[in-house]
Amino acid sequence: MIRAAIVGASGYIGGELLRILLGHPEVTVTQVTSERMAGRLASSAHPNLRGRTQLRFRRAEELGDCDALFFTTPHRLTMGLLPGLAARAGLVIDLSADFRLDVDAYQRYYGTPHAAPELLTEFTVGCPELARDRLRQADRVSVPGCTATAAILALLPLARSGLTAADVQVDARTGSSGAGRGDGAAGAHAERSGAMRVFAPVTHRHEAEIARHTGLEVRMSATGTPATRGAQVICHARARCPVSEHDLRRAYRQQYASEPFVRIIAERRGIHRLPDPKTLLGSNYCDVGFAVDGDGTRVAAIAALDNLVKGGAGAAVQCLNIRMGWPEQFGLDFPGLHPV
Amino acid sequence: MIRAAIVGASGYIGGELLRILLGHPEVTVTQVTSERMAGRLASSAHPNLRGRTQLRFRRAEELGDCDALFFTTPHRLTMGLLPGLAARAGLVIDLSADFRLDVDAYQRYYGTPHAAPELLTEFTVGCPELARDRLRQADRVSVPGCTATAAILALLPLARSGLTAADVQVDARTGSSGAGRGDGAAGAHAERSGAMRVFAPVTHRHEAEIARHTGLEVRMSATGTPATRGAQVICHARARCPVSEHDLRRAYRQQYASEPFVRIIAERRGIHRLPDPKTLLGSNYCDVGFAVDGDGTRVAAIAALDNLVKGGAGAAVQCLNIRMGWPEQFGLDFPGLHPV
Amino acid sequence: MIRAAIVGASGYIGGELLRILLGHPEVTVTQVTSERMAGRLASSAHPNLRGRTQLRFRRAEELGDCDALFFTTPHRLTMGLLPGLAARAGLVIDLSADFRLDVDAYQRYYGTPHAAPELLTEFTVGCPELARDRLRQADRVSVPGCTATAAILALLPLARSGLTAADVQVDARTGSSGAGRGDGAAGAHAERSGAMRVFAPVTHRHEAEIARHTGLEVRMSATGTPATRGAQVICHARARCPVSEHDLRRAYRQQYASEPFVRIIAERRGIHRLPDPKTLLGSNYCDVGFAVDGDGTRVAAIAALDNLVKGGAGAAVQCLNIRMGWPEQFGLDFPGLHPV
Amino acid sequence: MIRAAIVGASGYIGGELLRILLGHPEVTVTQVTSERMAGRLASSAHPNLRGRTQLRFRRAEELGDCDALFFTTPHRLTMGLLPGLAARAGLVIDLSADFRLDVDAYQRYYGTPHAAPELLTEFTVGCPELARDRLRQADRVSVPGCTATAAILALLPLARSGLTAADVQVDARTGSSGAGRGDGAAGAHAERSGAMRVFAPVTHRHEAEIARHTGLEVRMSATGTPATRGAQVICHARARCPVSEHDLRRAYRQQYASEPFVRIIAERRGIHRLPDPKTLLGSNYCDVGFAVDGDGTRVAAIAALDNLVKGGAGAAVQCLNIRMGWPEQFGLDFPGLHPV
Repeated sequence: MIRAAIVGASGYIGGELLRILLGHPEVTVTQVTSERMAGRLASSAHPNLRGRTQLRFRRAEELGDCDALFFTTPHRLTMGLLPGLAARAGLVIDLSADFRLDVDAYQRYYGTPHAAPELLTEFTVGCPELARDRLRQADRVSVPGCTATAAILALLPLARSGLTAADVQVDARTGSSGAGRGDGAAGAHAERSGAMRVFAPVTHRHEAEIARHTGLEVRMSATGTPATRGAQVICHARARCPVSEHDLRRAYRQQYASEPFVRIIAERRGIHRLPDPKTLLGSNYCDVGFAVDGDGTRVAAIAALDNLVKGGAGAAVQCLNIRMGWPEQFGLDFPGLHPV
Repeated sequence: MIRAAIVGASGYIGGELLRILLGHPEVTVTQVTSERMAGRLASSAHPNLRGRTQLRFRRAEELGDCDALFFTTPHRLTMGLLPGLAARAGLVIDLSADFRLDVDAYQRYYGTPHAAPELLTEFTVGCPELARDRLRQADRVSVPGCTATAAILALLPLARSGLTAADVQVDARTGSSGAGRGDGAAGAHAERSGAMRVFAPVTHRHEAEIARHTGLEVRMSATGTPATRGAQVICHARARCPVSEHDLRRAYRQQYASEPFVRIIAERRGIHRLPDPKTLLGSNYCDVGFAVDGDGTRVAAIAALDNLVKGGAGAAVQCLNIRMGWPEQFGLDFPGLHPV
Repeated sequence: MIRAAIVGASGYIGGELLRILLGHPEVTVTQVTSERMAGRLASSAHPNLRGRTQLRFRRAEELGDCDALFFTTPHRLTMGLLPGLAARAGLVIDLSADFRLDVDAYQRYYGTPHAAPELLTEFTVGCPELARDRLRQADRVSVPGCTATAAILALLPLARSGLTAADVQVDARTGSSGAGRGDGAAGAHAERSGAMRVFAPVTHRHEAEIARHTGLEVRMSATGTPATRGAQVICHARARCPVSEHDLRRAYRQQYASEPFVRIIAERRGIHRLPDPKTLLGSNYCDVGFAVDGDGTRVAAIAALDNLVKGGAGAAVQCLNIRMGWPEQFGLDFPGLHPV
Repeated sequence: MIRAAIVGASGYIGGELLRILLGHPEVTVTQVTSERMAGRLASSAHPNLRGRTQLRFRRAEELGDCDALFFTTPHRLTMGLLPGLAARAGLVIDLSADFRLDVDAYQRYYGTPHAAPELLTEFTVGCPELARDRLRQADRVSVPGCTATAAILALLPLARSGLTAADVQVDARTGSSGAGRGDGAAGAHAERSGAMRVFAPVTHRHEAEIARHTGLEVRMSATGTPATRGAQVICHARARCPVSEHDLRRAYRQQYASEPFVRIIAERRGIHRLPDPKTLLGSNYCDVGFAVDGDGTRVAAIAALDNLVKGGAGAAVQCLNIRMGWPEQFGLDFPGLHPV
């Protein structure tokens, strides 16, 4: 058993990480931090965990040594905290946005200079489908954003196969949990319930990550949906030469044949023909699918995942499993619910 | 045309009152106040009203004269504000809780002494089904709480007919708009979405109003539902002697035969057999229904309404119409939507 | 007062048309038809209308004369019914898809030959923003599809101003009421609730209408959302030359300055910055907005409406008002609700 | 490993049972039946299980031998099927209503004579909190209804302690999945979304089960909520003598101190003070709580659970674990999600 700690564990993604690690056969969670809730039970923030853990939040400054240290603190805050705490553990996995980009892209997309630029190159992208081999030896891991992961996994077979042109339009939809606790007036139930809120009509920060990892020229819009959890992307691309559904299926299968957490969902019949976050809540799957129009020129790539799991805490645990040489499914075997 | 003003018009019930009055054929809204949003357009708080009004919020202290003055300020705050502003208009209609009870009941249920006890007896209950005649001459009107109105209208035919015993258990369900803007962490979308939150398991403040107006001995529990709007009550009573559905229907018809905004919904077939707030959003109807078990001993009375309309702003306008001698439907003819 | 009749009035769009016409100051609804519910009260299908009308459904074959005849029957069925019934009224307004396209486009997009091709050229498009002058004298009107209307109104200022290139990617999102009653297993609550169902990933029938009326080359994907009502589109276009937000605002204002039911919603602050169907339920507004990226090359046009109102029944009544020379707002003054 | 089979596995509760058993360390699911979907993959009915099983549905008549046989067929149908198939396995666990009552109560509540009355006495109630010892040797198990389980677990500490009088009013709320697939027009998304449908205003079938197992005199009303999953009850009782919160807490603790799947949730602060199905989706917990009014006379007992898990499939697996002498948590360790 290794000892894990979570910095910023009172948030939604921290809670989901705690849930997963409490069920992990090789991990003991020994410390969780929260400035706001220091001294209180972790389960007071995460009611689903009542009866599952007696851990109490402590302050970050009280953090002791452990084997694996996870950061689920907000972006901008994390780059200030992480350098001082990283020495507590051999393995550091960051779920914030702060160590995903290079120094210039960070400044451009987050509007502020990076506070620890010297550390940026130490981090390996926490996406097994992109970097499994490097992750086997990575001691600093940065998990991509939830819609970035969805778009990367949707687009990777197109980018690698060269079936489509480089410029892609991505339309992303995300639930309210992505905004975290304390989204203020905009996040009030009466305001958000039933809303389709276009919060990023022409460009979104996650573009930079998608472009970095696929080599494509990506434009992304994003809309907040009435869901609490879940993210979905539809990516619109043009075929270089006319393609068939068969060509696409082959490309997706080649890419993902042995991936434990990517399923190809592109069916001709039934209710559940393409990826939908509804069937993925709590699961570490990213479902990916595709479609092409009748003349083979327009391609859509669709992906869906749980923003807090495969789009965050689950991806982090999958990276941990790879780093430790454990089966990738450890702690991640919940398949999702239907109906829900 | 009379001139109307709304104090506290940036809240949800204030917005709904503004919507209704803007469509009223005999009213011009001349002033709306909000301390927090003074200087801004009313439609910036109420996006459905964009293009409908150029009114801007002012501070309460800037309030000038008008003919009808509505208070949609929070309880506890209203009793401090109203005495100083009431002289601005001949007719004052309060939608807060502050002038609904007598001085003792107020202290008991709201946990604080009343700040203007001398005014309490000046107010007439703003429920036309209870007090239409008095409302024709009332210059001070206090509109009941939303679940109180629902329960009163559900129970009145039972109380007046004497068909059931005096002690009644009321189970109330309310949407999130009832908590107003700024419900804080508990009101965040991710926390409230899909929740069934029992916030009042054994007793609720509106009991006092229901008891006062029906003469029944009422216990009420209340649960917050995943809806934004709407309130529903199921009231459980025991028949004094065995009763039939026919007896009940007669009692409800006698009570409400000529009421323009109470519909009796108690059908044996179809999807919509008993009152449901779903079909009432935006409407001033209170639907009431009933059922009795096979041996005639247990009776259920059900009511549903839109908490912001018949449970608030619509009731206030109906009272205005009565006071002014206008048709009661003025401004209130929207029937609700289906499906929604 | 003119006499109106609705063929196929038991469906959702028929019910919404009935609601609007019952509140119209110059119209009396004299007949409603439904094969399935013949003999039953119209309000048994539309529970919000209980107490508002005593009309009963009759069979289409029993239809007598009237002044304005509306078809809210399903596509494919309508083209068989309409020719035999059109003589009952001087003015015929069809809300189905059957008279929107030319004969070739119909065959291509609906997969079946048209049953009454000789009538196609008699119809004027029922979109006042496109064809107000022609509608003043049109006796045959065909209302566009809900997402087509949204996309047309979002794109018209771009198409007319020439600010953007001709090829446009439209991403549409629609609530479950668009599928009508009887959507079968796919439409069951447990299957649809919370779903984001990509039912048209690369192409959608409404493309043909959008292209026809804007001259643009349009590709549209469509996703079913968890909402019951409402439609929204995000349209992605490329600027021909770099454009500013100011250029866009001017183009939208020029196009819609005097339109009573198009609002421009493109704000920099607040919760409700871009069009969202949430604030439009029951209203005849189509809200349109826009955004451009920092270098002025990528433009997004967004529109939202209530699919059953401005996307159907409301548009039909607006056309009626124009044809009859009445104020366009007659029957259509409900502004929508917030929050809901 | 034992071999399990599920009769009627294409329904929602069958799918949930399949999900749980696929993750059970001591069980292999060898057969699933569905008449409607015979020959198709089980995952075509349960999209969350894609990639988890290659099982295909067969017809019930093709059922071969196994060790544990589960029935998730509808009531009325089950009593016809079960007698002919029960010999296929040593252990039979029925999740329908058909073997829960005695012959008279069945006739009274289900309106039809029982088809296999001689088998009724062979069944042990599948509620570990009521009958753990008997379940250790039971070869025929009948799992209670979902709201019955919730009410029984809410009320058991009151019934056993004698703190309250015998007559209890139960108000139950259930999500749409409880009606199963194929709920027809009433179950369409547009009709059910946002609805609070009082489908049982004065009496509900589960009363008979609750009374049988608690000895209380129970009246139950039931309302369909907008949720897909989850059931909640509020039970209203009168104290025999004034009771305190302390008395109640002691009674609940005594009853449930060593129960692995009952949590006592009765907190004075925070957002999640009383049982709410929102935090229980997918989990086998039944959360129970209580409250008492200021003078100690009125008591509310609240319970919440996932109707498809602790209210069905999870309870069945817990019974299996007890019968086999395995830890009760086997296959049931998913704690639920928050937020969701």
